[in-house]
Amino acid sequence: MYSFKCDYSEGAHPQILKALEASNFIQTEGYGEDPYCQEARQVIQKVIGRDDIAIHFFVGGTQANTTALSAFLRPHEAIISVDSGHICVHETGAIESTGHKIIPMAGKDGKLRPEDIQTALASHTDEHMVKPKLVYISNSTEVGTLYKKSELEAISTYCRDQGLILYIDGARLGSALMSSENDLTLNDLAQLTDAFYIGGTKNGALFGEALVISQESLNEDFRYHIKQKGGLLAKGRLLGIQYLELFKNNLFFDLAKHANTMSDLLRQGIEKAGYSFLTEAPTNQIFPILPLELVEALEKDFAFYRWCQTEEGVAIRLITSWATKEEEVQRFIQKLNQLSS
Amino acid sequence: MYSFKCDYSEGAHPQILKALEASNFIQTEGYGEDPYCQEARQVIQKVIGRDDIAIHFFVGGTQANTTALSAFLRPHEAIISVDSGHICVHETGAIESTGHKIIPMAGKDGKLRPEDIQTALASHTDEHMVKPKLVYISNSTEVGTLYKKSELEAISTYCRDQGLILYIDGARLGSALMSSENDLTLNDLAQLTDAFYIGGTKNGALFGEALVISQESLNEDFRYHIKQKGGLLAKGRLLGIQYLELFKNNLFFDLAKHANTMSDLLRQGIEKAGYSFLTEAPTNQIFPILPLELVEALEKDFAFYRWCQTEEGVAIRLITSWATKEEEVQRFIQKLNQLSS
Amino acid sequence: MYSFKCDYSEGAHPQILKALEASNFIQTEGYGEDPYCQEARQVIQKVIGRDDIAIHFFVGGTQANTTALSAFLRPHEAIISVDSGHICVHETGAIESTGHKIIPMAGKDGKLRPEDIQTALASHTDEHMVKPKLVYISNSTEVGTLYKKSELEAISTYCRDQGLILYIDGARLGSALMSSENDLTLNDLAQLTDAFYIGGTKNGALFGEALVISQESLNEDFRYHIKQKGGLLAKGRLLGIQYLELFKNNLFFDLAKHANTMSDLLRQGIEKAGYSFLTEAPTNQIFPILPLELVEALEKDFAFYRWCQTEEGVAIRLITSWATKEEEVQRFIQKLNQLSS
Amino acid sequence: MYSFKCDYSEGAHPQILKALEASNFIQTEGYGEDPYCQEARQVIQKVIGRDDIAIHFFVGGTQANTTALSAFLRPHEAIISVDSGHICVHETGAIESTGHKIIPMAGKDGKLRPEDIQTALASHTDEHMVKPKLVYISNSTEVGTLYKKSELEAISTYCRDQGLILYIDGARLGSALMSSENDLTLNDLAQLTDAFYIGGTKNGALFGEALVISQESLNEDFRYHIKQKGGLLAKGRLLGIQYLELFKNNLFFDLAKHANTMSDLLRQGIEKAGYSFLTEAPTNQIFPILPLELVEALEKDFAFYRWCQTEEGVAIRLITSWATKEEEVQRFIQKLNQLSS
Repeated sequence: MYSFKCDYSEGAHPQILKALEASNFIQTEGYGEDPYCQEARQVIQKVIGRDDIAIHFFVGGTQANTTALSAFLRPHEAIISVDSGHICVHETGAIESTGHKIIPMAGKDGKLRPEDIQTALASHTDEHMVKPKLVYISNSTEVGTLYKKSELEAISTYCRDQGLILYIDGARLGSALMSSENDLTLNDLAQLTDAFYIGGTKNGALFGEALVISQESLNEDFRYHIKQKGGLLAKGRLLGIQYLELFKNNLFFDLAKHANTMSDLLRQGIEKAGYSFLTEAPTNQIFPILPLELVEALEKDFAFYRWCQTEEGVAIRLITSWATKEEEVQRFIQKLNQLSS
Repeated sequence: MYSFKCDYSEGAHPQILKALEASNFIQTEGYGEDPYCQEARQVIQKVIGRDDIAIHFFVGGTQANTTALSAFLRPHEAIISVDSGHICVHETGAIESTGHKIIPMAGKDGKLRPEDIQTALASHTDEHMVKPKLVYISNSTEVGTLYKKSELEAISTYCRDQGLILYIDGARLGSALMSSENDLTLNDLAQLTDAFYIGGTKNGALFGEALVISQESLNEDFRYHIKQKGGLLAKGRLLGIQYLELFKNNLFFDLAKHANTMSDLLRQGIEKAGYSFLTEAPTNQIFPILPLELVEALEKDFAFYRWCQTEEGVAIRLITSWATKEEEVQRFIQKLNQLSS
Repeated sequence: MYSFKCDYSEGAHPQILKALEASNFIQTEGYGEDPYCQEARQVIQKVIGRDDIAIHFFVGGTQANTTALSAFLRPHEAIISVDSGHICVHETGAIESTGHKIIPMAGKDGKLRPEDIQTALASHTDEHMVKPKLVYISNSTEVGTLYKKSELEAISTYCRDQGLILYIDGARLGSALMSSENDLTLNDLAQLTDAFYIGGTKNGALFGEALVISQESLNEDFRYHIKQKGGLLAKGRLLGIQYLELFKNNLFFDLAKHANTMSDLLRQGIEKAGYSFLTEAPTNQIFPILPLELVEALEKDFAFYRWCQTEEGVAIRLITSWATKEEEVQRFIQKLNQLSS
Repeated sequence: MYSFKCDYSEGAHPQILKALEASNFIQTEGYGEDPYCQEARQVIQKVIGRDDIAIHFFVGGTQANTTALSAFLRPHEAIISVDSGHICVHETGAIESTGHKIIPMAGKDGKLRPEDIQTALASHTDEHMVKPKLVYISNSTEVGTLYKKSELEAISTYCRDQGLILYIDGARLGSALMSSENDLTLNDLAQLTDAFYIGGTKNGALFGEALVISQESLNEDFRYHIKQKGGLLAKGRLLGIQYLELFKNNLFFDLAKHANTMSDLLRQGIEKAGYSFLTEAPTNQIFPILPLELVEALEKDFAFYRWCQTEEGVAIRLITSWATKEEEVQRFIQKLNQLSS
């Protein structure tokens, strides 16, 4: 049984394990104040092309989102998100647990547009309602789509006009940036947003998310918030060592590229076999719609999620990763063809 | 410069790294529902001698404390702790950030006694004040002392009489249990408390705390709370693999034993050199009181914290760990003797 | 300029002021432990026909909702509400500020149905999502509609089957109960729900909401929550005196009856003039749809809210109350007829 | 049985009831946007001598404190207070329920001094601890003492040097300002603090506290916070009408003066009878220390709180108010003399 259920089914890329081993007996300060974290921050700043941005490491995405958003907002301020946003659905109310309302908008293809933000603002007009203050988007999105540069620019411009903070959840940012459809750079993200994070957990690290804060005022006392929310790792070096390994020689991008190549193969094979998709997803998550019997047959050899029922069949979710084996992808397509014929 | 600043200066015991490597390419479910976590839970249950207890893994101690305490309490309920308790001082108000007051008591030698709890209860009598509901203690304590079985029994009995939940922060539980002064077992802890955690971060793991909930009603829906507080690790297996390694062959206890042996050597050497201690600390944290000049001289070769000023001199904190090298301990004592003579 | 903007534009019914004056110099205990509150609770219990229910007085509705819901729920538990629900929209995120997510459902005519609750449950299936635990409805609703007994019974049965708490926001309960369409009694409410409140602010009191908790377990330590949320009025007697006045001789029902009679007159007059309504609202809020020019002309003499734009015209909201003068209602209808002809 | 238990045992001064009656049928906007509130704000601004300050009305003190402090602080910021402070003890953890730690300091005579603040700052030095940001004091204090101008100036200067917000809980500010020992004016308070409130509930209003914010940046979006915390009274006019009555013709000060005159009589009578006091309290709360038998005998005719046990006897708390009858004070002293002889 080979799994396409998620991009965190395995451990970490071997180079990362090797780096942990190599540094294992060196004594360092705790809590992210060690030389590895410092060097990793510098390397990431260099890759982004900005030395005036702050970088903080987290163990996981829910922690990064919750810490950042609760630190950025005052108690009455709210977040605008598409209703399929990770914070809206899959974080067990973590954001609300810090006191903030999320205003869910339908959006389109898992993406938020300026007009959605405008609609949210138009219906929140006085002190009897929360005050929308932060726009949350994910790139790639929860349904595998991505933001084009023009789309992000439009949102960014609108947010700045309205005094809104723009934040990107980058749990799968690597795959987005390495997609053939992508025209955004890390430098663009730092220019167009106030903060975003670069996901490591789903791209080859044991764990880790690097939060980039480009709006300086949002960085004030930020380490207090990390500590209060339980995210200041005692052996913070573990995050520095991993991010250093990911960014010092392009490993981060190579791993994302591999994941995308694998999903490209899957997508092409499935298309060729005559099936359509729930969303146009040029990243490492794809959502083919297959007949129920076919899904059931595939489930004998492969693990994946059934996403939703559509009129044409069952939409399933297939995720590839840095660790996905090409031979398993080929086997999946063979099986699909064999079962379809 | 060799550091006695803390017990999380290095990575992890090599066996743990080896176990991570060995399992690296095996695909598993995420979020702690993998076979490693399941086996680790069973092994720990066996070591404790109770198969009716729940075990949840966390990345860090602040996270474990905050998640557990906020899950156990209703909004108006408060926590009683000694004023030197970790949650009182060094967690940036994490507990209060979930809405609960901590009632700080002076205690004695970093420990809480039934009479302290009684005093707290006596001054909280009606709905104009918070309702004390949970007693938080640490073993070993923040000043290196430990609870004898009779002391813990007295607290436990008092708590049960008063309907109070008893919780132990076990960040340094290994060292406590392996102290020559200790007469408690893990089984005792499960019997006498409602929940406690077994600290891995400070005893040879890369990271990890294993929360044991022996009071079944407190375990209801507990995984929701872990997720909401940002503590449900995507690659949860990393915690299972480490705890399995720590407990399947006694490694956890061997490592704590080593830390204690090293602190015993330090303690004896310092005593022999004629110095006294701030607290009677039979664990891996000791607090010798030394003349300022001596402290300054030692700081040229060794890193450690200055804890507080006393009438007799500066109390410093020396911490040993699973990784402490005996040769460095010997060198410290030699230096001390040399500088004292 | 006469106002139909809300039902809290004036002070209080004269009998209430008189009762405050009569009791003014009598010394009592504070915080709702005075004889007036005690008597008021007994009178309300009698009117409801249940002496086993708890009654707590609040100054306002947001306070009552927030205190009750946050007291009833554990941190990971969420509330299901129609998206037009008062807590969803018009309480500035008060519920979320206590840490709980509200799951907004479209419903129908401002009302929630068992199938809406079922849909919410079906999409919240594991610990990665909040756990729906409480169903919030308003009667009358925010758009003037009301729940028939059969509708409330269906919701109540469904909630009990699913282990959900059922709560009614009764800010305008008086008007609902006195509507010609109503077939519910206060006793029914106590039987079918776990808690509800009887609104005084919008029905002739200076201020006041009486929360009825019929599910005994939800009442545990409830006064602690009132105090913590800032709702324990020092001169709690002010609430007791008013509720005693409202319920000892049917005043509460008489005042609601008057409000409904006034809205009946408005509704009939507007219907007769040939206009339709946004919702079928048999209570003291009605939402006629009028041509823009007519709305603008009426605004010269009367104050009211423009609710929303429809294809047929502007829906406005007219609210009547215990204090509405019949002559002003007549004048409104005359003006309407005059302007329409 | 006559009560000296508190200063909120009766209703309100008759002028206030009369003002409510006179305005009863006038229609106004809700939520404090009515002409009465506007005029009351202007009158208070004039009395303070500052037209650049914001004024917000609340129903009660816990609500005022919680709303203001949670609005002023970011999540990691903490409050410094004497350990007898009202927010520390008697608000059921309301402040902590909004996420903020209170750092309790011993102080002296119920008062905080710059050196206490300094001690708190000195022990909170990095992101592992909360960040002290706001200093909370009460005037008069919870033990009846008051701040002299020089004391408040010293605190104010220290706070400004350290970037700390200074806030005064003025539940009993009237009595403080009218004390023979007082040398502070309302204008001084506005100059020396960032915010304070003028208590009405304990000085002749049915209810009400007027929060004065003199630091403009703290006032941003403040009404959102009032609404979110449940404090935006629907018939907000009730607060405006009362404060207008209290301040338009000096009634506020006259009532406080009466309360103080009554406590002066009590104090002098008790002193003359040869008894001492727990604190030197020149306001409307006094704490005489009496033999147990005497206390028991007095309790047959008068209600009051036993405050604490001292070596010399039982310290009781006697409170006078705007409504205290001189004949009852005389009777108390007679009884005391009679029982003492």
